[in-house]
This record gives sequence, C-alpha cells and structure tokens, in this order.
Amino acid sequence: MNVHINTERLLSRIDQLGRIGALPGGGCKRLALSAEDAEGRALVTGWFRTLGLEIHTDVIGNTWAIRRGRKHLPPLVLGSHIDTVATGGLYDGVLGVLGGLEVIESVIDAGIDTEYPLAVAFFTNEEGARFAPDMMGSGVSQGGLELGEMLGKVGIDGKSVGDALDAIGARGSEPVGALTPSAYLELHIEQGPVLESECLEIGVVTGVQGISWTEFTISGRSSHAGTTPMALRRDAGAVAAAIATEARAIARDFGPPQVATVGRMSFTPDLVNVVPEQAVLTVDLRHTDEATLKAAEKRLFETAEELASAEGCTLARQTLARFEPVAFDTDLVDQIVSGAVRLGLSHRKMPSGAGHDAQMFAPNCPSAMIFVPSQGGISHNIHEFTAPEDLANGVRLLAEVALERACVVQPEGQTA
Amino acid sequence: MNVHINTERLLSRIDQLGRIGALPGGGCKRLALSAEDAEGRALVTGWFRTLGLEIHTDVIGNTWAIRRGRKHLPPLVLGSHIDTVATGGLYDGVLGVLGGLEVIESVIDAGIDTEYPLAVAFFTNEEGARFAPDMMGSGVSQGGLELGEMLGKVGIDGKSVGDALDAIGARGSEPVGALTPSAYLELHIEQGPVLESECLEIGVVTGVQGISWTEFTISGRSSHAGTTPMALRRDAGAVAAAIATEARAIARDFGPPQVATVGRMSFTPDLVNVVPEQAVLTVDLRHTDEATLKAAEKRLFETAEELASAEGCTLARQTLARFEPVAFDTDLVDQIVSGAVRLGLSHRKMPSGAGHDAQMFAPNCPSAMIFVPSQGGISHNIHEFTAPEDLANGVRLLAEVALERACVVQPEGQTA
Repeated sequence: MNVHINTERLLSRIDQLGRIGALPGGGCKRLALSAEDAEGRALVTGWFRTLGLEIHTDVIGNTWAIRRGRKHLPPLVLGSHIDTVATGGLYDGVLGVLGGLEVIESVIDAGIDTEYPLAVAFFTNEEGARFAPDMMGSGVSQGGLELGEMLGKVGIDGKSVGDALDAIGARGSEPVGALTPSAYLELHIEQGPVLESECLEIGVVTGVQGISWTEFTISGRSSHAGTTPMALRRDAGAVAAAIATEARAIARDFGPPQVATVGRMSFTPDLVNVVPEQAVLTVDLRHTDEATLKAAEKRLFETAEELASAEGCTLARQTLARFEPVAFDTDLVDQIVSGAVRLGLSHRKMPSGAGHDAQMFAPNCPSAMIFVPSQGGISHNIHEFTAPEDLANGVRLLAEVALERACVVQPEGQTA
Repeated sequence: MNVHINTERLLSRIDQLGRIGALPGGGCKRLALSAEDAEGRALVTGWFRTLGLEIHTDVIGNTWAIRRGRKHLPPLVLGSHIDTVATGGLYDGVLGVLGGLEVIESVIDAGIDTEYPLAVAFFTNEEGARFAPDMMGSGVSQGGLELGEMLGKVGIDGKSVGDALDAIGARGSEPVGALTPSAYLELHIEQGPVLESECLEIGVVTGVQGISWTEFTISGRSSHAGTTPMALRRDAGAVAAAIATEARAIARDFGPPQVATVGRMSFTPDLVNVVPEQAVLTVDLRHTDEATLKAAEKRLFETAEELASAEGCTLARQTLARFEPVAFDTDLVDQIVSGAVRLGLSHRKMPSGAGHDAQMFAPNCPSAMIFVPSQGGISHNIHEFTAPEDLANGVRLLAEVALERACVVQPEGQTA
C-alpha cells in the first residue's frame, strides 16, 4: 500500500508544536488545559481543518478529526495526547497525534480511499501533571471515568477541570461516548531503554503493566545512636531499608517483567546520631499479569509486617494507586507484527510500563500500540529524544497497519 | 565517711539552673556562650563563691572552684558542663557540676578535711550544638584541641567562639593547661536505656566508645519506574538501602558493644515512579575497641563499594567524624565499683556511647565516670528525666569515691 510518509512535514510539525510552551534548555511545558495547551490545540486543529477533516470536540475537550470512509462504519482512530508534564519533551503523546495526522495526510496525498473512516484524535489531560488522575479525557470518553467527577477535579493551581476547560474554550458539545472506534492504534515513544539497548526499531505493545503504588509509614522510637544497644532499638529507618531491599528481592525472584521501585524515602528526625523514629517509603510494583502482581503485593506486605514487628515498630500502609494490567487485542498485535515484517523493521513484543490512552479504549474496541526507541530511555525530561528515522519508521508502520485495518478500496481495474 | 548528701539542695539547684533558658513544654535551651549560658554561669559561680571556694576561669571560659586540701597537691576535679542542646533537658551535664558542688558542700558541712584539694568545674561548649567540635573547653584545657583554632570557630549564628566569649564576659585569664587534676571524676546521666532496662542504679563507666561517622553519596541514573527493566537500572536508592541493611548486619555479626545507626537518608528526585539517581545516607559506627571499629569500617566500606559497583553506580565517601575509643583508668573504675558495693548500690560496668568531657582528661590523669539511669533512655530532649533517688545515689557514690581518692584527714584521736 504505497503511501509516502513525509518525514520533513512530520518533523516540522513536531518542531512547531514544541515551540509552544518551549523551555529555555529544550523541551516544553504544556500542562493540560493551560494557555499553552490551548495554543497547541489551536495549531493542531488548524492542521486538521486544512485537510478538510470533520472535527469533533466532546464535553471534556477530547478532539478528533475524521476522514470519511466509503462505508458508514465506526472510524479507525489514531490517537494520543498533546499535553505534557512540567518538564516534558517534544515526542511523548505528540508523536501519536502528529503521526496519525501524517498517516491521514499521506493517504489523502496518495488518493487512497478506505472502507472505514480514519480519525486522528488528541485526549485531554493524559499526563495527570496538572489534574489527577491521568488519562482523564480518554477515560471519560470510554466510560472508565465519570464525567461529573472529573470536571470537579481540582488541579495543582486550585482550578477545576471544568473551569479550566471553559477558560480556554476547550469544552465541546459531543457527549460522552460519542467516539466509538472500530479499533484504536497509538504510536508512542517507548519512554524506556529496552529497544535502544536491544538495537530494535519497533516495540509491538502487547498490553500495559498493572501498577501498584504503596506508601509505608514505619513508626519506631528515636534514641541515641551511641547509648542505645541494638537489642533495645525500635529503628524505623532500619525497617524501611529492609523493606526496600525486599522489594528488590521480589523483582529478582519473580523475574521479568516484574519491576519494583522504591522512589521515595525519608527519615525523621534525619540526624546522623539519632535512631529514626519514623520512616516513610513508597514501593511501585508493576507486572503484566494481575495474579502475579497480587502475589508480589502479598509477599511485600507480609514481609513488611514481619520486619516492622520484629523491630518493635508499627507499620501503616496506604495504597496510592492501583491499576490492573491491560491486555491489548491479540489480532491487532499480530497485525502490527506482520506489518513490521513487511516493512523490514526489527521489532519485539513488549508490555508498556507506563499508562497510555490506549488502555482506556481496550475494553471497548480492539486496541494496541506501537513503540519507537527513546534515546537513553529518557522521557518526562527536556532531553527526551527519538531519532528522525525512528519517528518515520513508527509512522510508516502506523500507516501500514491502519490501511490494512481500514480496508483500502482498490482502484478500479486492480485487485488486492 | 559520713557525709550527708542534701538531696533537696541538689534538686533545688537543678531546678533553679533549669529555669534559665526554660522552654515552654519543659527542658531548656542554654547554647554555649549564649546570654542564657552567661546567666547560668553567673548562678553557678555565685554558689561557688558562697562556699568560699577559690574560683578560676581560663582563656576559653572553663571555670573551676577549689576547696583547698591539707597538702599542696593537684586537685581532684569533679566536673561536667552546663551548656545544653537547643531542646535540652535539665540533667545532661548539669548533674555532674551541681553533683560535684553538692559533694564539696556536704564535705564542708561535715567539717571534713582532705589531703588533696577538691574542685568542681564546668567546661565551655561540651555539646557542640552552637560551635563544632563538641567537648571544646575540656579539649582545649587538656591539650587535645588548639586554643587559637577553637577561638576562631564560627557557630551556627555566624559568631566566633572568641567573640562569643567576650560578648558575655566569659573569657578568663588562666592559661591553657592551668587545670591539672590529680584525678577527674564525672557524674552523668546515662542518656541510654541500659540501666533502666536492667533495673540497675549505677553504671560504672569503663571508657568512651570510638565513633566513626561516614556519609555515603551514591550516584546512579534516574529512569522510569515502569518502563526500565531491572537489569538496565542504576538505582542509587537500592544501593543506599542495601548499605543501610549491611550496617545493621555488621552490628549483628560483630555483637555488642558494636552499634550501627543509619540516621540520615535521602533520595533524589524522591518521586514514587522515578528510579532515584542519587541517594545520600550516613552510617554511625561505635565500638569500645579501636581494632574492632576499624574492622567494622573496613567491612562497611568494602561492601558499600561492591554494592554500588554491582548496580553500575558510583560511590563517594566522606568522613564526618572519627574519634578513637577512650579507656578510663582501671584503678579509678575499680574504686567506683568498690564504692557502689559499700553503698549497696546495684551496678554494672559499661562503656559510654556518647562523648563526654572526661575523655579529654583521660590522657593526662586518672579519669572515670559514673552513670545514673535515664528514664526511657531519653536525652537531648525536653523529656529527659532521672528520678530524684537516682540523682542522689549518683551524688552519694561520687562523694564516696571522691573522699577516698582525696584522702580524708582523720580527726585527731581517730584512726582510719
């Protein structure tokens, strides 16, 4: 299916969008529903309009643009987001939206018609950097999150989602559920080091890891580091360190794709010669299989209790976040693999370690994702970078799968 | 040797001194050479004067008061300090000074003469809470610290020791080395839980633990907690937790009196879902034997290097403090034990886990210490408390040993 991806056009658009909210050292800041986000929405919607696409915006600001198909069918949606974290890069989310746009423009350029409509979409507040939770727009659109509750969510600046939508005029008229894709495809940077370290061009994403975030607060007794024998201590810090070491051991014993991260740790009173009376740490566990993730949680929680109890400390545990794993559509995943083979792109199947809009579509329609390499595995960082040829590979594969999925209408006199 | 310790008088003086710099919830704050310290010095020196003692103050503000002996011999010194930490209690240091004063007053009351002069002393800036290092006055007096260097030390408020001495008029005329005790005895609260937990009245202190403070800074690479496989991580936090756990293991494997404390711990960037790129922790190791302390350091440092290296992290190590252990005079220690036996006081020999002025005298004259229980092992805290009977027991034993050591002159017509 000979569509020609115009890499220059793609790069130029990424660059233009990246100038909105540009940060001094590189990267950019376009928090959801901010003035910069509004400017970004206007730029991208302008491109949609120029192509003559049919533009829709729903009640939480999700925007999609449809190129009609030959048949009146639900569209194949190519989407992602254009909001960023406070110190974001140029590619996270943006690639999926501008890559989807590039696919549609290339299809138009090539004069190709499809049975299914093709749509490109961006969803409100995927990052969750201004308003929690993340993946808010796609979640509301697909019924995973409740509209009224989300409109009332208050951001880091004290403003609600509803007020922020109105402030930038991003609240549309399409109701929740208006977007009903026949399938959903999202091209994204990996945001991790796997593809680069294995010298691969494409990640075929089989699903999204389940996430379990737990905060442990250990309470012991502060005492003098010199005068208190070990046997008489109730050292909250020692328990925290042992729990962190146990989290590591769980990841080692369970093996990949189990990951475990202790990202936060603090001691009170935090003095060299005082046994800590309190320690707080967080453990982030992720796995693609819910039963395994539960087993990891069980071992962590039980061991933490034992460690605290053995030291004469008390343990409080708070769940900060918990998402079950999402499995993407196996047929669509296989189609991506086949497409990569046809295009001669080196690839592997892999789970996504981060959350994405695609997981909100997975319960409702066949959904899957394509990853391209992130240099150094770096993301949510102004130094986020993906090489132009990798960006182009991703968009070529997106086009390949999209056209197969949307059923190209063969020109008269030709056969498939 | 029938001297009568006046417990009411002792308690009253502790109370009066504790009102100077009193804190709202209890305890007090008399930082070294502060206005409160000046007021405390004046109160205590006034008591010295009332007893007709011969008062001396040296160039760094150490003050001692001598009751002449029958012979022109160096004095037996009963000393400690009256400065406190910012949230100090009523007993730390104060007991040794006011207990020494009570011994001398009781001896005077009893009309007893001694061959050796008896002296009571307080030393400048034992706590080190305003000016580092601690034990400054006793250190300068006994040659362990250099006067000029110490006078130039700048405190937490930007003022030098020399300026602070002059500001409160505490700089005296006696030169360094003017105080040359025949022996040095210090009564002090334990500041730890051992005596209370073993239901003992007296700790006979055999020496001061050696102290080794090390700060480790581990540098790794920050990465995404979801997208970075364990094998590709350089997790500074995991290394820090493993070093903390190793410190615990060293204390366990070496056994008492080895202690190990990780009092400070911090991660950067300290976010739930980001692998820490940097972690800083401190390890406080203490032991009464220098060779063992060195062995503990060696194991800690080598293991820390191995742990960092295995994770692909770099390790920087900084020594924050290092003091060799001090052994007190065995004859004097035995005299304290004998005195406790005569008085029917339950007791045990034990090392001091904290630093004290006595260790500065140990190289120059027979020195030792007597501990009394600290309720809950709590010290450097406004809730520091020692029961009146325990205070009195300590002073009775101090008098017992002091009179034996200073050689009571038997009244005519009596024999020993």
